[in-house]
Amino acid sequence: MARTGRRTGHQDTREVILAAAREAFAERGFDGATIRLIASGAGVDPALVHHYFGTKHQLFLDAMRAPIDPSQIIPQALAGGVDGVGERLVRTLLGVWDSEAGGAAAAFLRSAVSNELIAKMLREFVVNRILRRIAKDLDLDPAEAPLRGNLVATQIGGLIMVRYIFRMEPLASAPPDTIVALIGPTVQRYLTAPMSAGLDGRT
Amino acid sequence: MARTGRRTGHQDTREVILAAAREAFAERGFDGATIRLIASGAGVDPALVHHYFGTKHQLFLDAMRAPIDPSQIIPQALAGGVDGVGERLVRTLLGVWDSEAGGAAAAFLRSAVSNELIAKMLREFVVNRILRRIAKDLDLDPAEAPLRGNLVATQIGGLIMVRYIFRMEPLASAPPDTIVALIGPTVQRYLTAPMSAGLDGRT
Repeated sequence: MARTGRRTGHQDTREVILAAAREAFAERGFDGATIRLIASGAGVDPALVHHYFGTKHQLFLDAMRAPIDPSQIIPQALAGGVDGVGERLVRTLLGVWDSEAGGAAAAFLRSAVSNELIAKMLREFVVNRILRRIAKDLDLDPAEAPLRGNLVATQIGGLIMVRYIFRMEPLASAPPDTIVALIGPTVQRYLTAPMSAGLDGRT
Repeated sequence: MARTGRRTGHQDTREVILAAAREAFAERGFDGATIRLIASGAGVDPALVHHYFGTKHQLFLDAMRAPIDPSQIIPQALAGGVDGVGERLVRTLLGVWDSEAGGAAAAFLRSAVSNELIAKMLREFVVNRILRRIAKDLDLDPAEAPLRGNLVATQIGGLIMVRYIFRMEPLASAPPDTIVALIGPTVQRYLTAPMSAGLDGRT
């Protein structure tokens, strides 16, 4: 029988670990926050952390209360290489956010914007787990990849804000194909077009 | 002598009017929310609303607690016509957000994302006071202007999120010229490039 809302000892331990994880991830980033460190912060044995959450990646998602795991979805958009990857990334994004998971994702993003700890974790996740993966799979020049990734984040993040958070029309009701055709080329350009004058001073 | 924190009768009246204004603007939009309606909601005389806030535009900004008035800044970016307007809009935006006003603007945006009432007001403001103004000044095709405006909002909004809210590097520390060179052309394309296949089903 489901006993919703009742706190058990197990649940308390889980929450203590999650709180310690949030602090560690926000302070030290994904790589710096070891399971050992998080366990120590929570006052439990590292084995217990693994027992409750499996991998560090899963613990990170749970600590953010992320409703979806982008790193499970993005590889399919990257498969197929550089040609048209901008369109495929936008289409993949719309598929997730237009689905049932979209409401939870919007709630999550709201909390990230208003909570500095979650914001830091989300930034860490987007930069080091998603954008770095995209750069690697597409074999981008490492000197340019961080800025290209940031530019993609502006366009994808802005699309999410306008369509799902602020629900501006006509974009909020536009069919996915329309949006893919209009915004996909921008993402493609940010990923693959030769960096022009703007980057000259930095490389 | 400044008596901070002390509530006077005047301040109470102001706050009651602001609360009534927020409700009216969110429910009916800028045009639908008349001063008469707001005054009635607050239980005061319309003349008192004018006395405290001057124009409806100013009341709207005060009700949102908007730290800056974009409609005061955008005309200078639009002067000079269509050529290079994308770059000028991005440069104007960076000028404001990189200034002292930026911190308050970020705080405002955070509250808009987490508060449905403020979000509705901000959307109303962006769509009907900023984007419509841009479309008019640039003489955009009225059939295309709403979608073009939404697209500009995705790119500008996403830039704000990445640089000022999530402070991703290298974009958070990039010099304005770099960002103008990289993102300006996208804004320009959204405003002036011929609408391709994506829009065919809608016009």
